[in-house]
Amino acid sequence: MGEVVDREWMERAFESTRNWGRWGSSDERGALNFVTAEKCAAAAALVREGITVSCARDFPVQPSVENPRPAEHHMLVAGDDAEALGIPGLGATTDFIGVAFHGMATSHIDALCHVVVGGKIYNGFAASEVKSTGARRDSVMVAADGIVSRGVLLDVPRLRGVPWLEPGERIAPEELERAEAAEGLRVEAGDVLLVATGRDARRAAKGPWDPTGVGLAGLDARCIPWLHDRRIAVLGSDGVSDALPGAGIEGWPIPVHQCCLVGMGVHLLDNLALADLAHACAARRRFEFLFVVAPLRVVGGTGSPVNPIAIF
Amino acid sequence: MGEVVDREWMERAFESTRNWGRWGSSDERGALNFVTAEKCAAAAALVREGITVSCARDFPVQPSVENPRPAEHHMLVAGDDAEALGIPGLGATTDFIGVAFHGMATSHIDALCHVVVGGKIYNGFAASEVKSTGARRDSVMVAADGIVSRGVLLDVPRLRGVPWLEPGERIAPEELERAEAAEGLRVEAGDVLLVATGRDARRAAKGPWDPTGVGLAGLDARCIPWLHDRRIAVLGSDGVSDALPGAGIEGWPIPVHQCCLVGMGVHLLDNLALADLAHACAARRRFEFLFVVAPLRVVGGTGSPVNPIAIF
Amino acid sequence: MGEVVDREWMERAFESTRNWGRWGSSDERGALNFVTAEKCAAAAALVREGITVSCARDFPVQPSVENPRPAEHHMLVAGDDAEALGIPGLGATTDFIGVAFHGMATSHIDALCHVVVGGKIYNGFAASEVKSTGARRDSVMVAADGIVSRGVLLDVPRLRGVPWLEPGERIAPEELERAEAAEGLRVEAGDVLLVATGRDARRAAKGPWDPTGVGLAGLDARCIPWLHDRRIAVLGSDGVSDALPGAGIEGWPIPVHQCCLVGMGVHLLDNLALADLAHACAARRRFEFLFVVAPLRVVGGTGSPVNPIAIF
Amino acid sequence: MGEVVDREWMERAFESTRNWGRWGSSDERGALNFVTAEKCAAAAALVREGITVSCARDFPVQPSVENPRPAEHHMLVAGDDAEALGIPGLGATTDFIGVAFHGMATSHIDALCHVVVGGKIYNGFAASEVKSTGARRDSVMVAADGIVSRGVLLDVPRLRGVPWLEPGERIAPEELERAEAAEGLRVEAGDVLLVATGRDARRAAKGPWDPTGVGLAGLDARCIPWLHDRRIAVLGSDGVSDALPGAGIEGWPIPVHQCCLVGMGVHLLDNLALADLAHACAARRRFEFLFVVAPLRVVGGTGSPVNPIAIF
Repeated sequence: MGEVVDREWMERAFESTRNWGRWGSSDERGALNFVTAEKCAAAAALVREGITVSCARDFPVQPSVENPRPAEHHMLVAGDDAEALGIPGLGATTDFIGVAFHGMATSHIDALCHVVVGGKIYNGFAASEVKSTGARRDSVMVAADGIVSRGVLLDVPRLRGVPWLEPGERIAPEELERAEAAEGLRVEAGDVLLVATGRDARRAAKGPWDPTGVGLAGLDARCIPWLHDRRIAVLGSDGVSDALPGAGIEGWPIPVHQCCLVGMGVHLLDNLALADLAHACAARRRFEFLFVVAPLRVVGGTGSPVNPIAIF
Repeated sequence: MGEVVDREWMERAFESTRNWGRWGSSDERGALNFVTAEKCAAAAALVREGITVSCARDFPVQPSVENPRPAEHHMLVAGDDAEALGIPGLGATTDFIGVAFHGMATSHIDALCHVVVGGKIYNGFAASEVKSTGARRDSVMVAADGIVSRGVLLDVPRLRGVPWLEPGERIAPEELERAEAAEGLRVEAGDVLLVATGRDARRAAKGPWDPTGVGLAGLDARCIPWLHDRRIAVLGSDGVSDALPGAGIEGWPIPVHQCCLVGMGVHLLDNLALADLAHACAARRRFEFLFVVAPLRVVGGTGSPVNPIAIF
Repeated sequence: MGEVVDREWMERAFESTRNWGRWGSSDERGALNFVTAEKCAAAAALVREGITVSCARDFPVQPSVENPRPAEHHMLVAGDDAEALGIPGLGATTDFIGVAFHGMATSHIDALCHVVVGGKIYNGFAASEVKSTGARRDSVMVAADGIVSRGVLLDVPRLRGVPWLEPGERIAPEELERAEAAEGLRVEAGDVLLVATGRDARRAAKGPWDPTGVGLAGLDARCIPWLHDRRIAVLGSDGVSDALPGAGIEGWPIPVHQCCLVGMGVHLLDNLALADLAHACAARRRFEFLFVVAPLRVVGGTGSPVNPIAIF
Repeated sequence: MGEVVDREWMERAFESTRNWGRWGSSDERGALNFVTAEKCAAAAALVREGITVSCARDFPVQPSVENPRPAEHHMLVAGDDAEALGIPGLGATTDFIGVAFHGMATSHIDALCHVVVGGKIYNGFAASEVKSTGARRDSVMVAADGIVSRGVLLDVPRLRGVPWLEPGERIAPEELERAEAAEGLRVEAGDVLLVATGRDARRAAKGPWDPTGVGLAGLDARCIPWLHDRRIAVLGSDGVSDALPGAGIEGWPIPVHQCCLVGMGVHLLDNLALADLAHACAARRRFEFLFVVAPLRVVGGTGSPVNPIAIF
């Protein structure tokens, strides 16, 4: 990769890819604006077989080195006391779920208010708009009616002929284009772009690891202008899209998050499970599909756990 | 309505509509088996415009008479301390969500293990399979790859020419058929059948009310054989499908839940928000659409909060 | 009661009872400073019999009109799956508790940072010191080593010869002094003053009620100078000390909370259960006792659920 | 140490120290019955100075190798939005706490229902009495009025002249007696016995470690008959009283827990912070004090987070 990515490069990249004002000064949807009705209808037309593939990991209730704040699944009433609800004749079992979903284990969507750069969130709103009582701007509610578009999987391990990328490895924009060529498609405006790094396969083979310590494969910062040019609506990965550890650029520890969420208004999907999807795509030699993301409607939320569904 | 629905009628209805063994003795998917790949593909082909409509209520964090155990949305880090994650240069806001979703306020899917009849859950497994540590059978994981099928809205208030049905009102199967006729469609195998009662409109006009005390409009138990005959995959409502209060039949307080979940293996969607969907359907004179439900992948779960998306 | 309590009166009362700077400009303990070692030792010397009486309500897990955000008690592993921890030979049962304890049902202590007046908390720190990530000043940790002092119960229903005070009834300082006289004691510096209103008895007889709607008996604002003069360390009640509804003084909806927590630095104990204590005191004709409050050590917390123990 | 502790020894020890029926067939309080009113009064008479020392760790919200399921402290309303409660003129900050307290980081009390041996809990009740909806027997409510007795600290590192015991080290009953002698006291009926292992000091020096992997210092199983003979009411430690890893005796992975909780009916206090207490005792050359434990009143609970207070 040619250019030197330093602090100045990052600041220029942030400025040049920023979509503030592009859809008006009070816009909170960002690049979701690229998902037009036509785009959505065309995505639905991609469905041929009617096969669905989940792109989420199981709700991560087990602690591990990559899951220091596990999700909670608490049975409230089980079969041992199914009459507990107290309605005569009714046996029922119930449970509770809870999760601080930002992190490295829960499959989730980041709302645009999740990251702050220079005291601002997407479209220039002040970070103080995100209050202890909820986000007044750029919350996950902008996606309340779901994100339904064409999903595109760029399978980088497949391109490289390896089962997975190693933690810390960076993907350059040129490699994304080689993946496009290998897969016979082109990432377009309004797409949900999913970049696989083989994280599930590595975890299955080697066990979980601490992403903040050991690292995660992800996109090099040089991909940022490319993502902007292609006008993707949403970016997702089995990792967190950013490569970890960061490149050590002061002020830019997770540049893809920072430029996508804050600058471009591109939502992120983190910690997806893409092994099944990659397998389904390879078997069909088809890497585009209808893709549906349905966040929980958390008013003022900074995101949501999600189970995105790809449909072939 | 002609027949007398008493305890004997209910027991005969449960037995005659029971699908235990229909898909094998170890089946846990129940009527989801009616959603074939062909059905799913045909549903996707219903998409013409690419307009999406959420069928979920906002995550119900405010207590009210219909919400005695509110959901939790807790900001963990807000804009006032966005550096708190401790990664130099990173400003981020995060939150936690939690919910005991079974109840009358959260839009959710009931897994087949949620209700027990005679010590059994769907397909004859013992209620003791639902342990304090999770359900070993019939959990929400059977829908982990999403439920993607044709959605059909039967808008009963529209049929009756009223803004909503009153709490406690019952819908007979004959009325479901009149709605079909008025809407120019027929409920078929594998459909997700949504029955609107106008609950959102009534709540907007009169404020929330306690469903267990005041009641909810819903399906009369006589609909149970009809639901079975039509081989629906999933049943949903802006209420809980069952009319409340129950009809006072000993042992059958919520017969639709009991027969659908336990007998037929038909998943239920409770507390949906159908006002927007009803409006969208009426405007188009079209009451069928692609419908996507994506539960969180809670291993051993009795259900999940969901945000089902209808796509026109 | 003679004086007119209006906005001017309140502002004068707040100013004249304010202890800011009394114990130094960086003090966060407030009136806990009145609980000297001598005071604590003298309180322990009050113990004659060795009988303990809890002053807390049961952890309030059931919703009711006074409990719109119930506490959570979730069994994680029960006897039906006691081997679930996975340690060979070990059977164990475990659970989870959670609570948003400020409210009208959980027995809890308010830390001094819980209330804000004019943008300030106790000792003049800015409200912004209480961040979305925790309170940097005046947190519950100032009481981390426990509050151990003389407890004094002023039983106002007993004084009046009634089983309880009605919601909204106000207690004047003169009445507190009549209770002292009737009980043969005098509230002194460093005391934990508990004022009973008979709330438990009324709830047992009439069922729970909505305090914000119907009201709660409590102290009239005129008690504020009296509380200051007596140099109490902590104020508690079976209610919330303040009478509800408020007296309608603009800016002063809960003047006892506002003046005690923010001005005087007097911690509050809300929603105590005082029926057993009142009974124990009356039986002994003794209304003073060793009193121990042990908050959970929540760093940055605005309070804690507590189970205060009176020891005779 | 002379005897061989094998499975037979354990079974004999369990049988010979079992207090089932000692206080009647429906007793659920176990050795708390040793804390008579006289014992409590005598404990209060130990107070000379009026100095209080907390024996709890801070509420453990940070993940670490010893804390894989951190406690939760979520601010609900902070100073940035103190008007959020919506009561005109009221500024207030609030929070939520939650914890699955059994584990290696939260200071907590184990109720007698927490451990199961041979399908039974203390006093022979069936483990099935501990339901998914709560424990019907032997819950933490038996201590609802607090545990107030003489506390005795046996400081084993002090005895050995070391700052801490190493993970896995076992303490023999002879060593407990040598500590008694060094401290000039004798553990008696009704005492709360606290055994320090220096865990806090080791953590401060070396950082946290995984107790299940690396180990914890604790009592050798040979202490079990000694604990029974001395008729202690409660046993606590900065560890979990049991030495980890276990001694490898089939069926007896944590014999102290198993014999104390199930057999003797002796409650356990785990993960206490005893460094401050040890220091306070050494400075005074006094290792006995008034000790107060006040569990939250969780109906059906398997224990509670606690902040036990020692009073000199």
